[in-house]
Amino acid sequence: MLAVLKQSPAPGFVIGDVPIPEPGPGQVLLRVAATSVCGTDVHLYDWNPWAAARVHPPRVVGHEVCGEVVAWGEGVTAPAIGTRVASESHIVCHHCDECRRGDFHVCENTRILGVDVDGAFATHLVIPAVNAWPVGDTVAPDVAAAMEPFGNAVHACSYGDLGGRTVAVFGCGPIGCAAIAVARAQGAVRVVGVDRNAYRLQLAERMGAHAVVRANDEPADAAIRAAAAGGAIDCVLEMSGSPVAVASATRLVRPGGWISLLGIGDGLDVVDLSTDVVMKGLSLYGVAGRRIPATWEQTTAYVRDGVIDASALITHRFALRDIDSAIELMKSGECGKVTLTPD
Amino acid sequence: MLAVLKQSPAPGFVIGDVPIPEPGPGQVLLRVAATSVCGTDVHLYDWNPWAAARVHPPRVVGHEVCGEVVAWGEGVTAPAIGTRVASESHIVCHHCDECRRGDFHVCENTRILGVDVDGAFATHLVIPAVNAWPVGDTVAPDVAAAMEPFGNAVHACSYGDLGGRTVAVFGCGPIGCAAIAVARAQGAVRVVGVDRNAYRLQLAERMGAHAVVRANDEPADAAIRAAAAGGAIDCVLEMSGSPVAVASATRLVRPGGWISLLGIGDGLDVVDLSTDVVMKGLSLYGVAGRRIPATWEQTTAYVRDGVIDASALITHRFALRDIDSAIELMKSGECGKVTLTPD
Amino acid sequence: MLAVLKQSPAPGFVIGDVPIPEPGPGQVLLRVAATSVCGTDVHLYDWNPWAAARVHPPRVVGHEVCGEVVAWGEGVTAPAIGTRVASESHIVCHHCDECRRGDFHVCENTRILGVDVDGAFATHLVIPAVNAWPVGDTVAPDVAAAMEPFGNAVHACSYGDLGGRTVAVFGCGPIGCAAIAVARAQGAVRVVGVDRNAYRLQLAERMGAHAVVRANDEPADAAIRAAAAGGAIDCVLEMSGSPVAVASATRLVRPGGWISLLGIGDGLDVVDLSTDVVMKGLSLYGVAGRRIPATWEQTTAYVRDGVIDASALITHRFALRDIDSAIELMKSGECGKVTLTPD
Amino acid sequence: MLAVLKQSPAPGFVIGDVPIPEPGPGQVLLRVAATSVCGTDVHLYDWNPWAAARVHPPRVVGHEVCGEVVAWGEGVTAPAIGTRVASESHIVCHHCDECRRGDFHVCENTRILGVDVDGAFATHLVIPAVNAWPVGDTVAPDVAAAMEPFGNAVHACSYGDLGGRTVAVFGCGPIGCAAIAVARAQGAVRVVGVDRNAYRLQLAERMGAHAVVRANDEPADAAIRAAAAGGAIDCVLEMSGSPVAVASATRLVRPGGWISLLGIGDGLDVVDLSTDVVMKGLSLYGVAGRRIPATWEQTTAYVRDGVIDASALITHRFALRDIDSAIELMKSGECGKVTLTPD
Repeated sequence: MLAVLKQSPAPGFVIGDVPIPEPGPGQVLLRVAATSVCGTDVHLYDWNPWAAARVHPPRVVGHEVCGEVVAWGEGVTAPAIGTRVASESHIVCHHCDECRRGDFHVCENTRILGVDVDGAFATHLVIPAVNAWPVGDTVAPDVAAAMEPFGNAVHACSYGDLGGRTVAVFGCGPIGCAAIAVARAQGAVRVVGVDRNAYRLQLAERMGAHAVVRANDEPADAAIRAAAAGGAIDCVLEMSGSPVAVASATRLVRPGGWISLLGIGDGLDVVDLSTDVVMKGLSLYGVAGRRIPATWEQTTAYVRDGVIDASALITHRFALRDIDSAIELMKSGECGKVTLTPD
Repeated sequence: MLAVLKQSPAPGFVIGDVPIPEPGPGQVLLRVAATSVCGTDVHLYDWNPWAAARVHPPRVVGHEVCGEVVAWGEGVTAPAIGTRVASESHIVCHHCDECRRGDFHVCENTRILGVDVDGAFATHLVIPAVNAWPVGDTVAPDVAAAMEPFGNAVHACSYGDLGGRTVAVFGCGPIGCAAIAVARAQGAVRVVGVDRNAYRLQLAERMGAHAVVRANDEPADAAIRAAAAGGAIDCVLEMSGSPVAVASATRLVRPGGWISLLGIGDGLDVVDLSTDVVMKGLSLYGVAGRRIPATWEQTTAYVRDGVIDASALITHRFALRDIDSAIELMKSGECGKVTLTPD
Repeated sequence: MLAVLKQSPAPGFVIGDVPIPEPGPGQVLLRVAATSVCGTDVHLYDWNPWAAARVHPPRVVGHEVCGEVVAWGEGVTAPAIGTRVASESHIVCHHCDECRRGDFHVCENTRILGVDVDGAFATHLVIPAVNAWPVGDTVAPDVAAAMEPFGNAVHACSYGDLGGRTVAVFGCGPIGCAAIAVARAQGAVRVVGVDRNAYRLQLAERMGAHAVVRANDEPADAAIRAAAAGGAIDCVLEMSGSPVAVASATRLVRPGGWISLLGIGDGLDVVDLSTDVVMKGLSLYGVAGRRIPATWEQTTAYVRDGVIDASALITHRFALRDIDSAIELMKSGECGKVTLTPD
Repeated sequence: MLAVLKQSPAPGFVIGDVPIPEPGPGQVLLRVAATSVCGTDVHLYDWNPWAAARVHPPRVVGHEVCGEVVAWGEGVTAPAIGTRVASESHIVCHHCDECRRGDFHVCENTRILGVDVDGAFATHLVIPAVNAWPVGDTVAPDVAAAMEPFGNAVHACSYGDLGGRTVAVFGCGPIGCAAIAVARAQGAVRVVGVDRNAYRLQLAERMGAHAVVRANDEPADAAIRAAAAGGAIDCVLEMSGSPVAVASATRLVRPGGWISLLGIGDGLDVVDLSTDVVMKGLSLYGVAGRRIPATWEQTTAYVRDGVIDASALITHRFALRDIDSAIELMKSGECGKVTLTPD
């Protein structure tokens, strides 16, 4: 089958021809309908230090995917053949201490699709049956593929009641923009998007931001406060990973408020916890992956029933063979979600 | 009446003679039965920069107190004359945004007893009637006085279910030691106390720590893991304010676990939020003061019904006139809770 | 001043002339801008058994009110003179066990405005300063008056995350219709209104119900399931007080779902708790009054920032002198919220 | 192998000889170390209407079990051969709406061990690998077998913070008595056990009840209030299934309190929801099975680390061949947990 491969331990992907995989016990085989590109795929392409330390080529890459169940492995009884599904990208062990607590999203033995096992940028892939999430017939394949990162946004919005709240979203990439839509759907009265990139701020407005703030290397505290239009900022959803943004978030959130931390940065963070967290009684939540399965269930409801228009997030579409162009576009930052289709 | 005063903007306290205050509308007059000394009182004594910026002498100091209601101001209908009460030390405005959300513990206009208004190191004091907390007849006056800091410990233990959990307490002063007892009472299966001070580690063991670790300037990660005896550390209660301890806490807590931050430090904290908080899905809670009134209610139940032996925390008793000796002892660190009685 | 009075222990109200009250310690005097009529006022008018047992005439009635602060009693420092406020109708003691837990909404010594003390259907009234809730300048007086019952709806919607959920609202009076709007604002994907009254079902649709079901004395399970359009019913908001409705709710809600019980009925309820609650793992929440102050804060945010159009709930307006016509209309059921203005 | 069988659709069990089962894909084979008897087993023995409608003989019965993993089916990778495990008795589908929400404990397609598939009263059984819960080396086999019902108690105690609370437990069978121990471990200050059976009340006291009340057909409200010794009852854990007890619970719990409903009764319940639930702001929680996996994790911590002495619950031990005597003893009510060993 056609597949996008990390062929060797070096930058770049190649388009290859590999055998269609066989589903093992507990696995299903999917025929891919649509996939989308994540920042992680760009790291794999660039062969950055994290990728070089973790990935063992050759590897079929890609982990955001929608497909149709076309075969069952041993012991599988659902989802039915023909079902259209999205895929949770974390393959968890069900046996470590974290899994035993129900914290599957931080399983110690997580294997990631398209990183630790062969992934989705191909015509077919195998995943565990329990990772296959039926999405119904009304959700378009490219939206279903994007439910994985969209779920990150739903997860980030789940740490407090956003109804009636003023929210700032730091980092307006696809997850940040999805979070803007989720916060609006949950009744937030004012949502402010913050990013360095003008394209992304336009997307933030399209997804429902009441106001946007263009950031640079300096803290944008004053501009963000002004954009909140007099309301105290109840919550920051930190999707940028920038240390400047994290420290700014702890200053900006009102006493008793909270911060969801999802962005991953390169280095250490410097924060005045005593003044800005302890004395203000703030709560900070690290948001890893998606709650399994609860986040998927809520995400499906939002997307399937049109409470949120996830298709507005998808700005560009490529064929799988044009992966290089897709990666190039991702690096420019002048895009929302970028999807790939295998034909 | 006899009172301990910050007489002038300089180090030290003086024993003075001031008029017994009159309760204004909504206030009650208490005859003091017992008080206890807080680290804040030491800062006031030393006239550190925080104190110098905030306090306007002359001021009667002290804010941990048990007394008997002896007079009502205008409009007061309860607690009855003769009731023995402890006092919440935060006088809140009931009108700012935080109060309107029920987050009284982070009221923007908080005035602190013995800091912003005259306090408790005297034979009498006035407080708002709503700050007077009846403690019943079975709680000793010095224990009732210490319910204010004890409440900090109860508040810190309220951010997750400690039943069946392994907990590390960083900083074993009176609040940390109280937290050890609260964690045990809530069903924690293993509690590890960490401090630099051998005296305090003995107190930690007396309050129920299963193991203790002597810390120094270096992270004590390995020793703390060993003291957890193979169990993952579910939760750290950070009472030390040390930046070394905060960073260590984020490394030590298992994925999906949580940290209550109560200790106040002098400077900035350096933490690897991406690796140690986001990817591990940790939650960090800033613990300011006590939930009003919920923390008081739970603290009273613990103390009154003997679930926790708070009297074991009280290691030294002085007469009010001997405040200098009490402060000196506090600075040595060779003590638990130190109480003062006005006669 | 002009006032609507329960003059004697018998049916009916009279328009009277009574002195403007003086604010006592801790109280404020309000000049009434608008009031609205509650079902409780109808009970008082009819002098039903509950009213006869509780009310001691003469009594100025009415408890849903917006007014301007025009004078302070002793010890009051806020809200500022001239502030426009709504009023919490429950005057609580701050000293009983429930208040000490922060459960002010179920205070054992609750006195209700216009029931136990003189109320709001007049040109002026006094209330405790802590009951006066500033609403800002953008909320119309009649909407502010209705924030008290609107708060009941917000409280009922606070027992679970409605984002992505299918909700049935039983009883589409003003509180039920407000709950429909709140559920929509919080991201519910399908909201079904159920009532016997066609007028109210029209109002339910205007407030955002996706579908409505006309009920009669028989359980309407099948019709309600059909109206849910294939989605499992996650939550019922029970506002009718009908025993038929309560039992129906326990059958209809999907396993793991929840019911907010707010409607008050006349007699006993017959429910199969074993089959419909225990084995299905349902949660049932009794919803009394409003969380003080948290519900007010959230209600204000919804109304002030236009997330919810509460004015659509207000269907009729009368002058205070026309109270008899207002009561008559209320009894017909052919109305939403009915407001009264004192001039 | 030796097995206890429901051989035909009629009362009684027979001791039979059946083949050792083969583990299928995703299953493990256990060699049984200990089992225990549930009230459900008595219903199966008696062939009551529920059993007659659900069970299709022949069937190996029994579902509370501890065993050692001795073989893996296809696709299994854990727990390791030789691991001692307890078993969750609910075999869930992972695909229905409830499972997709993470509410596995109310899976619509639950198959119960020893009811819908062959069970544990034998020398060997097969279960899904994900139902096998490693218990460690320090937990005795009969205690591990009883972790399934013990988990019901832990689940029932998880709906509110019991620290500092006064709790009444209605029904002091093994689950009720376990709940008494769990409530004590979580810091409850007073626990009252209520039952009709003197033997069980003795067991309740042994498990930590501060006071016990002997009930009969009449509500025991006054006696239970007296046993609470002046404290308001914050929570009732209803384990009896008696309609008298349920109604009594709603009257006894203080405003703002809660009830965990776990007992299953024969018929309808009559409750004054308006007066006793709505106006008091109570919460009622149906407790079905155990949260999977969270309840197991917490139960293991309690048992393994000796916070709770579960062995005190086990009052009688039989060989598997003596199942008739064990059932007879169960019917007498003069027992706590009754265990069976296969040799």
